[in-house]
Amino acid sequence: MFKIREILTISDYVTLINIVLGLMAILLNDFAFVYVAVVFDALDGMVARKTNTVSDFGAELDSICDVVSFGVAPAYLLYANISTLSPELNIWGVILASIFVCCGALRLARFGVLDVKGFIGLPIPAGALFTCSILHAALLYNNVLSGTLGYIVLFVYLVAGLLMICDIRYPKYPRRVYLSVFSLALLIGVLGQPIPLVLCLISYTIYGFYGTLTHEL
Amino acid sequence: MFKIREILTISDYVTLINIVLGLMAILLNDFAFVYVAVVFDALDGMVARKTNTVSDFGAELDSICDVVSFGVAPAYLLYANISTLSPELNIWGVILASIFVCCGALRLARFGVLDVKGFIGLPIPAGALFTCSILHAALLYNNVLSGTLGYIVLFVYLVAGLLMICDIRYPKYPRRVYLSVFSLALLIGVLGQPIPLVLCLISYTIYGFYGTLTHEL
Repeated sequence: MFKIREILTISDYVTLINIVLGLMAILLNDFAFVYVAVVFDALDGMVARKTNTVSDFGAELDSICDVVSFGVAPAYLLYANISTLSPELNIWGVILASIFVCCGALRLARFGVLDVKGFIGLPIPAGALFTCSILHAALLYNNVLSGTLGYIVLFVYLVAGLLMICDIRYPKYPRRVYLSVFSLALLIGVLGQPIPLVLCLISYTIYGFYGTLTHEL
Repeated sequence: MFKIREILTISDYVTLINIVLGLMAILLNDFAFVYVAVVFDALDGMVARKTNTVSDFGAELDSICDVVSFGVAPAYLLYANISTLSPELNIWGVILASIFVCCGALRLARFGVLDVKGFIGLPIPAGALFTCSILHAALLYNNVLSGTLGYIVLFVYLVAGLLMICDIRYPKYPRRVYLSVFSLALLIGVLGQPIPLVLCLISYTIYGFYGTLTHEL
C-alpha cells in the first residue's frame, strides 16, 4: 500500500504552499500571490536537492501545482480584470485565458517527459510573471494610453503562451547578479509596483531569443 | 528538438478540451462545465487506447488538466457560493477549498507514479462530482434546512478530500448497468438537477468502503 503521509517530504509541503498561493490569487483576485508562489516554486526544488529527497512523486506534484499558480491564476486574473481596461474585450479575455492555460499545460507536460539541460520554451513561472506584471501595470496606469492597454495585455498573453510551447532555449540558472535584481523586482511587485518586474521579464524573454539566435545557451 | 505540434495526438486535444471546460467552470461560476469535463476526461483515455497513442506525455498532460477541472474548479465553486448558503462561513470556504485542492494534487501525483490495478483513494473526478453535486443541490434547496446546509457542504468537501488521499480501493470500471445510470445522472446534472448525481456519488463512495472491508475489489 502507498501511504501518502509516509512519502511526503519537506519539499512536497513547500510545493503544496505553492498551489495554495495560486488558489488564493484566484479566490482573492490578487497578483501578489502569484509573485510569492514563484519564490516557493524555486524553493521546493532547492529544498529537495539539499535534503536529497528528489523523487518522481515530487516532480509530478510540482507540475500539478505549477499549472494552478502559473497557468490558471494568470488566466483568471486576465478574465477578472480585462473589463476594467476595456469592457468590450471581455470575450477576448475568455479566449486568451483559455489559450494561455492550454499552452501552460502543454509546456508542463513536455517538461515532465523531457530530460534536457536548460529550458525549451519560456518556463511557465516566467510566462506567469510576464503576463501578470504587465496586466498589473496596465491596471495601475489605466489612465495612460486609455483604451489600447487592454489590447496590449491580450497580445502579451498570446505571445507568452506561444513562447511557452515554442523551441527557444532559455537558461536554467541566470547569472547571480541577475537573480538579485530579479528578487528585488519580485519584492517590489509584491508591495504593489510591478514595473521593475515588467522590465526583468521583457529582458529575460529577449535573452532567450538572443541565446537561440547565437546558439550560446 | 521536441516540437509540441509533432507530438500532439487526437487524445491530447480531448484532454485540452477538459482543461478549458474546467477553466470555464471557474470563469463563469457554472457547475455544468465540471460535469461535462468528466465526460471528456473519460473520453481522452478511451481515444488514446483506441488509436494506440497512449504516451507518457499524454498521461502527464491528463494529470495537469485534471487538477484544474476537478481540483481548482470545485474549490472555486465552493468559495464563490458558500456565502449564499451562510455568509459567516466565508473563511471556512477558503480553508476547505485549500484542503480540497491540496488533496486533489496529492491524489493525482500518487496516481502518476503508482502502477496498480484499480484506484487507491477516491478518484479525483469522483471527488469533484461528489462535492459539486452536493453544493449545487444545496444552492437549489437553500430554503430547506436553512443554515445547516453550508456546514454539510463544508463537511462533504473535507470528507471527499480525505477519501482522495486515503488507501481505500475503488473499482476502475464499474459494471455496465451502473455506467448507464451514471451517464443519465450526469446529463440530468448538466440540465440543472444534481440530485441523481448526488445519489450516484454517495453510492460509489460507499461501494469503495464496502469493497475494502470485504476485500472483494
